[in-house]
Amino acid sequence: MGKVTVVGIGPGSLMDMTERARRAIDEAEVLVGYHTYIELIEPLIKGREVIGTGMRQEVERCRAAVEAALTKSVVVVSSGDAGVYGMAGLVLELLLNIDKSQRPAFEVISGVSAVNAAASVLGAPLMHDFAVISLSDLLTPWELITKRVELAAQADFVIALYNPKSHKRIENIREVQEIVLKYRSKNTPVGIVTGASRSNETKVITTLEKFTEESINMFSLVIIGNSTTYVKEGYMLTPRGYKDLGVIE
Amino acid sequence: MGKVTVVGIGPGSLMDMTERARRAIDEAEVLVGYHTYIELIEPLIKGREVIGTGMRQEVERCRAAVEAALTKSVVVVSSGDAGVYGMAGLVLELLLNIDKSQRPAFEVISGVSAVNAAASVLGAPLMHDFAVISLSDLLTPWELITKRVELAAQADFVIALYNPKSHKRIENIREVQEIVLKYRSKNTPVGIVTGASRSNETKVITTLEKFTEESINMFSLVIIGNSTTYVKEGYMLTPRGYKDLGVIE
Repeated sequence: MGKVTVVGIGPGSLMDMTERARRAIDEAEVLVGYHTYIELIEPLIKGREVIGTGMRQEVERCRAAVEAALTKSVVVVSSGDAGVYGMAGLVLELLLNIDKSQRPAFEVISGVSAVNAAASVLGAPLMHDFAVISLSDLLTPWELITKRVELAAQADFVIALYNPKSHKRIENIREVQEIVLKYRSKNTPVGIVTGASRSNETKVITTLEKFTEESINMFSLVIIGNSTTYVKEGYMLTPRGYKDLGVIE
Repeated sequence: MGKVTVVGIGPGSLMDMTERARRAIDEAEVLVGYHTYIELIEPLIKGREVIGTGMRQEVERCRAAVEAALTKSVVVVSSGDAGVYGMAGLVLELLLNIDKSQRPAFEVISGVSAVNAAASVLGAPLMHDFAVISLSDLLTPWELITKRVELAAQADFVIALYNPKSHKRIENIREVQEIVLKYRSKNTPVGIVTGASRSNETKVITTLEKFTEESINMFSLVIIGNSTTYVKEGYMLTPRGYKDLGVIE
């Protein structure tokens, strides 16, 4: 019986991968992943068997991983943290359908999540309570997504948006903007980071009123500040509250 | 002029630190951190100057870091990701008070966040939209915290609680439980991970009705499932929605 390890490789650069992730990849007999992620770890592959790169559907790819894991040691690579909109859940769901006597071992290895990588590029926008919401309505009804945006805005959470825009969904982000504008000033800082820690990384710091005019794609992470977030000299910062306590100026 | 780099060392084990974090620590002239975190990176210190371990207040420690960075290369270590309730924001606030002509360079290096580490220990509870809330009312009014809990519960976010309990705050977690119970079944899965990735790591998977009976301390991370989260054979899992689409059983 084999094993399947779902590995979060971090946001992109091998420098942002953990030692545990690297070792798991080194020790695997089979590597599974979407071609973009397999390319990111290319120097680590060293001639080993790679499957699933050509499969467009993640379900198909995870099925292939679980099947290979019946007899082999398999690593499924996922960008960022594998447990946040990544492959950990799907692999686990498929594994739990297999009878325990036949089931491969299972492990998740955490990585630096995209939201944390994006925040570090912008300054320190996530220093207070935050909500993480995916705008992809492929697996979630759009009504539930907008309800969450509305309540998160009302709660004054910093809001991090995954999958903010794709070719098929160009209006959704404007609807989100409209909802948040009901609760927050149009000058609320918004940071957009695309391809954090990859060679083509870009960042923009703008406002709630203007951010939908910027270039946003499926590799972008959008962070909308809360009511106390400010921008100073190119950094986006959500204070933790020390000023209110009078302990710093 | 020096530099201050705020480094997220990940949840605890050196195995869960990124290569970028390790190199920054290796190259620093001065290391700054709370004694618990300095102990975690002890094998990497190699006789270098360490300051701030005896300081109980984080503001005092960050001030010392910024002062040292006027002339030296300084690394401030923070557990998990430095940008989530960590030292990134405070260091940046203090730096921005210094005139630009004198100001040390600044960088944040992301680490694996505590919430991601805890999730990987439990299975895959964070596969859908989630909210991160600290229950520490030292820097945030308790009324704002409970408002956020209420709206997050209403929005059916998976809810991750940082700083769930301290010696001084033992009733707060029960109030949170009461609020979430207004919106979710008493059988909603709750996972508690204490010391994720450290030698004393423990995990418990229980229910919304019972979780406050478990041992919870300031090193614990509590994850409250959403309305679809389930427990199967020891794993806590929030499905992404593939079953609804009919693509998996």
